[in-house]
Amino acid sequence: MSSTAIVTEPRNPLIARRLGIDTRHEAVVFLRADSHIVRAEGFTAHARVRVSNGHRSIIATLYHVTSDILHHNEAGLSEAAWRRLGLDGGGNVRVSHPAPLESLSTVRGKVYGRRLDAGSLSSIIGDVAAGRYSDIDLASFITACSARPLDRDEAIGLTRAMVEVGDRLSWNAHPVVDKHSVGGLPGNRTTPIVVSIVTACGLTMPKTSSRAITSPAGTADTMETLAPVDLDLKTMRRVVEREGGCIAWGGAVRLSPADDILITVERALDLDSEGQLIASVLSKKIAAGSSHVVLDVPVGPTAKVRSTEDARSIAQGLVEVAQAFGLTAKPVFTDGTQPVGRGIGPALEARDVLAVLGNAPDAPPDLRERAVLLAGTLLELAGKAPEDAGLAMAEQVLASGQASAKFERICAAQGGRRTPPTSSHRHTIAAQSAGRVVAVDNRRLARVAKLAGAPDAKAAGVEVHVSLGEEIERGHPLYTVHAEAPGELGYALEYAAANADIYIVTPP
Amino acid sequence: MSSTAIVTEPRNPLIARRLGIDTRHEAVVFLRADSHIVRAEGFTAHARVRVSNGHRSIIATLYHVTSDILHHNEAGLSEAAWRRLGLDGGGNVRVSHPAPLESLSTVRGKVYGRRLDAGSLSSIIGDVAAGRYSDIDLASFITACSARPLDRDEAIGLTRAMVEVGDRLSWNAHPVVDKHSVGGLPGNRTTPIVVSIVTACGLTMPKTSSRAITSPAGTADTMETLAPVDLDLKTMRRVVEREGGCIAWGGAVRLSPADDILITVERALDLDSEGQLIASVLSKKIAAGSSHVVLDVPVGPTAKVRSTEDARSIAQGLVEVAQAFGLTAKPVFTDGTQPVGRGIGPALEARDVLAVLGNAPDAPPDLRERAVLLAGTLLELAGKAPEDAGLAMAEQVLASGQASAKFERICAAQGGRRTPPTSSHRHTIAAQSAGRVVAVDNRRLARVAKLAGAPDAKAAGVEVHVSLGEEIERGHPLYTVHAEAPGELGYALEYAAANADIYIVTPP
Repeated sequence: MSSTAIVTEPRNPLIARRLGIDTRHEAVVFLRADSHIVRAEGFTAHARVRVSNGHRSIIATLYHVTSDILHHNEAGLSEAAWRRLGLDGGGNVRVSHPAPLESLSTVRGKVYGRRLDAGSLSSIIGDVAAGRYSDIDLASFITACSARPLDRDEAIGLTRAMVEVGDRLSWNAHPVVDKHSVGGLPGNRTTPIVVSIVTACGLTMPKTSSRAITSPAGTADTMETLAPVDLDLKTMRRVVEREGGCIAWGGAVRLSPADDILITVERALDLDSEGQLIASVLSKKIAAGSSHVVLDVPVGPTAKVRSTEDARSIAQGLVEVAQAFGLTAKPVFTDGTQPVGRGIGPALEARDVLAVLGNAPDAPPDLRERAVLLAGTLLELAGKAPEDAGLAMAEQVLASGQASAKFERICAAQGGRRTPPTSSHRHTIAAQSAGRVVAVDNRRLARVAKLAGAPDAKAAGVEVHVSLGEEIERGHPLYTVHAEAPGELGYALEYAAANADIYIVTPP
Repeated sequence: MSSTAIVTEPRNPLIARRLGIDTRHEAVVFLRADSHIVRAEGFTAHARVRVSNGHRSIIATLYHVTSDILHHNEAGLSEAAWRRLGLDGGGNVRVSHPAPLESLSTVRGKVYGRRLDAGSLSSIIGDVAAGRYSDIDLASFITACSARPLDRDEAIGLTRAMVEVGDRLSWNAHPVVDKHSVGGLPGNRTTPIVVSIVTACGLTMPKTSSRAITSPAGTADTMETLAPVDLDLKTMRRVVEREGGCIAWGGAVRLSPADDILITVERALDLDSEGQLIASVLSKKIAAGSSHVVLDVPVGPTAKVRSTEDARSIAQGLVEVAQAFGLTAKPVFTDGTQPVGRGIGPALEARDVLAVLGNAPDAPPDLRERAVLLAGTLLELAGKAPEDAGLAMAEQVLASGQASAKFERICAAQGGRRTPPTSSHRHTIAAQSAGRVVAVDNRRLARVAKLAGAPDAKAAGVEVHVSLGEEIERGHPLYTVHAEAPGELGYALEYAAANADIYIVTPP
């Protein structure tokens, strides 16, 4: 060991201790403020430090501990730190001052107006994916990219950098199609229907979806009530080879890990610049090996995209950046003013999907229309249908039952079709006056579904009975709360009672 | 309790538990991930939550805990959360979803280019001072103000907002003078000398100084080796009434608490916009009740202000914003290329101060010159000396021993003059070759002083024996490391040995 190593690494290793504290992606290390190492190294509270166990090293944020939850010779580690160091067998760690992150100086350059070239973006995103940025650094990068908007080349560089740091899939097929919805809308569960239609027409669509983070259900949560979705890459390939498509949870592959980290901070800041949105969406599609992708862009006053002007600008950016990667992208603007379908919550949404696939007379027409529109656009985009004939082809495949049959085969291939569970406790909220339904608060309606237990309680959620513009009588059911336990039902109903204005009904 | 309150506040309070975790200013609450409240309220990891104990409520960042360091009915609290809730007697807390912070929407507006008006700045700084901004929010605000520079009116609004949220002093005297150094330079300990000179001339200078945060010594640490500095406001007033001035630690008063919070994040990001620098400096001077202030602005390649162009721009901003508050400010540009004086560390710097005050033949001339320049400028600025006569007056008061006598009286009034301690362990680093001293790395030299124990070990630090431009022989002493314990001396020397290029000596 050279004398430099002696100085930059403390001589006495510390015993790694898993504290079971979930600080999300940010690695945190806890040290006694009165320990030898903190005093000798002059580690201040909230300093960035290097933690190494001989095999791996990470950058972490240091918190001082002044109580006995930790011994002097211990280093407490957050879950992210524990995981990244691969400490499951326990062990010792050394804590030292880290070398400064070079890429942060290019972030500061961006703050002051310098462009980010491809190399800088690659370094930044490499450091982000490796967990070397603190939340403070991430917030500064995201804010800089909003205050100094990315130009087209920067957006391309950011997209490429995001693809580079993750896994990348390839398929023995062409074209490989995909769809993505920009910004969530409760109940917008078109994916299983779109996959069924286009694979029934012979296209290849290996779809991976996410679970809910803050919403009452993600596509993976909904699909899980219909079939297993937790597929490893080998199983996914087998399903796609056999059926042309799948609807799996994306957790088995790390398609754009830097994006997963950036998104949590973007959400906390409520900042979402056009360049970052484009890179976020496209990096996952490129990494997934797609050649043609249709983008569902809901537009509405409470949606992510709020005006047609914004929509046009984002659409142009998406198409141009996609082109740079040989990816054909087509945005489709849809109504973003109200929930889609009737159900909000995994099993309730799954039931809407089955109703549309099964051509049930009471199937929600808005969900059906959106799915047909997206599937038809994909069929044209990928050359399966002539221009202006995609919609009719999609409609025919759905109406004929071919899409439904394909869906059943995909479920079987994924491990067997399941029947969505049914709620054991329900209560319906009725209109307190007659009139026209003029507004609905999507955010608070989603909150009722979450209080009722969604997405963990699969059968829980909200079933909607009215649409905007509808004329209703006093006492007409507005929505039904579904729960799996009386406590959760009570909790959701208390909230509903205190929020009688989730639906606004004006006198006729 | 209304039904709204039932829903937004969980029914079962949690037992507050002090975890002794120092997360600096950010309040953090730790809850079991599998507790009823986390599941029922849908609190995600890293969510912002409201914590209330009936008397006070705060906004905190939530971390999930998956281990047994916490019970299901407990809420673990960081030191900042514990302190702000005033929980020293223990007690129960309720955790709930907070109302959105309105001021954050104006920060987002700034990101997208909207100006911040006075009301917005007042709301933002009020929320910052109350601890309602997460580190992510603070990073975004600071980045936005760097990427979209504050105009003059915004800088004035920010300064006013910062003054409003803190304590404010007033004095039965006019003028009240002050000095401030913009950006630290090791050993730049002019304050005790300047206060002694100008109060000996009859001016009022109630000086409060800070302790070191990341440096080997702050002015308060240095002064503490010469006299007590931990004065309450009453004692400070008595000292100032009797002697015209004091040199006290600023901890007894909260002159600009929002600035203290912003500075830690600015430092972490290494971002320091002109508008924020101006507001940071002036808010403290205005709150301290000053009427005339001289600003020492070191300029150099590794100093905070790096070019004369930047210096001129900042100087103009400081003067104009100060004017808006009836404060007369004058910037003085000084050499920011190397340490000032010989000592780095509390007692070593104190010895330099005493040597200058005592007109010792070996007193460091650079420290003396700087102190006389700043004192002379203050004497002119406050009307004690005619234009161009301030320097001579300051020089005369220092040379005559009047300043030294005044300093002794101030120390006596503050509680009694102390003799700075002497180090028990020393080692001198010598030049390995003959030549000219062409460069010194201030940052790494300061690190040697910190490894030797400064500022906690008062006698520890570094004593410098050469200046830039000096011609030296091989074996000429470069600097001496002082320590109070052999272990700390060894630690500093290991670092010094591994960093032989702290001073660069080129062949003659």
